[in-house]
Amino acid sequence: MDRSLDDVVLSTTLDLLADLTPDRVTLDEVASRTGRAKTTLYRRWATKTDLILAAVRSLGSPPEVERLPDRGSLRADLLAVVDSAWLGGPTRRLVLFAGLGAAARSVPGLREVVDAAVTEPYVDIYRRLLLRAIERGEVPERVASSVDVLAAVIPAMSSHRLESGGVTPGRDYYVAVVDDVVLAAVRGAAG
Amino acid sequence: MDRSLDDVVLSTTLDLLADLTPDRVTLDEVASRTGRAKTTLYRRWATKTDLILAAVRSLGSPPEVERLPDRGSLRADLLAVVDSAWLGGPTRRLVLFAGLGAAARSVPGLREVVDAAVTEPYVDIYRRLLLRAIERGEVPERVASSVDVLAAVIPAMSSHRLESGGVTPGRDYYVAVVDDVVLAAVRGAAG
Repeated sequence: MDRSLDDVVLSTTLDLLADLTPDRVTLDEVASRTGRAKTTLYRRWATKTDLILAAVRSLGSPPEVERLPDRGSLRADLLAVVDSAWLGGPTRRLVLFAGLGAAARSVPGLREVVDAAVTEPYVDIYRRLLLRAIERGEVPERVASSVDVLAAVIPAMSSHRLESGGVTPGRDYYVAVVDDVVLAAVRGAAG
Repeated sequence: MDRSLDDVVLSTTLDLLADLTPDRVTLDEVASRTGRAKTTLYRRWATKTDLILAAVRSLGSPPEVERLPDRGSLRADLLAVVDSAWLGGPTRRLVLFAGLGAAARSVPGLREVVDAAVTEPYVDIYRRLLLRAIERGEVPERVASSVDVLAAVIPAMSSHRLESGGVTPGRDYYVAVVDDVVLAAVRGAAG
């Protein structure tokens, strides 16, 4: 297996997913951009779908799964995840996620791969941050019963905006979701 | 145009979307279930995608867009939307939405049609319910600045769960989103 072929081709595929409409992400275009022979690519990835799924699997998962941020407050921790340097930082990452959202409309199996690699790990990260804030006494114990639903808010609102096909949301959108939804709901949690 | 053909075929297509994996929703299956000749169906809808998009367009939009519920409290209004009789009531409607979510993974253009017919009208309904609760003094004026983001919470959390591919959420899930996220965030809204 030629590892460098994989690295170059998969990162080029991700660049195309971030920059273009999915219809234009083709094996021909990737071959042309990487200077590789189409036949070389076709031997390794039989279809455009195989190539795109391999590219998304190459992303790995958010690094916060392994190293939970610890900035001293729930708000700082949540924003540390939003501002993570993963995949080139927030701006680049959101553009890529928007491209993946668009591609998921037409590439079979892509949503499942994105959910498993990205969405589910993020829900897990937010769940653990909420539970830790309860443990250290920053958040009232009574919020424990709504942690599962609150942990899904940021990923759900992110997908909602990224898949609406409009302008890719910026950091402001995530700050509003953190402050006006998640932290407001934590403050207003019924007894 | 044979209206009754459309009615029978499109409602059968919706039943199949609700009951089956999208791969099994085929013109052959619809022809077989409706007792119509395949050639008749093919003349009207050239492809499975055309048929599915037509079926979803035949749903119309949530009736609450035209008649906003008015039950006297924001919570009762939000739950009236959740409990709406539209499309056969909550259980049938959620099963259908789950089927549409699954089908949107492989049917080109379906997500855009579902967003326009279902998701966007729901965001508009929740936005108007929140604004009306502010107007009648039930909800503090300072929540006005977060109405746009709060209005998207229920549709976003609904899509998140319906598209995760697991068990179709029941009424309990929506009650938790209403109580533990939307109403909690309204109570906890910062000044």
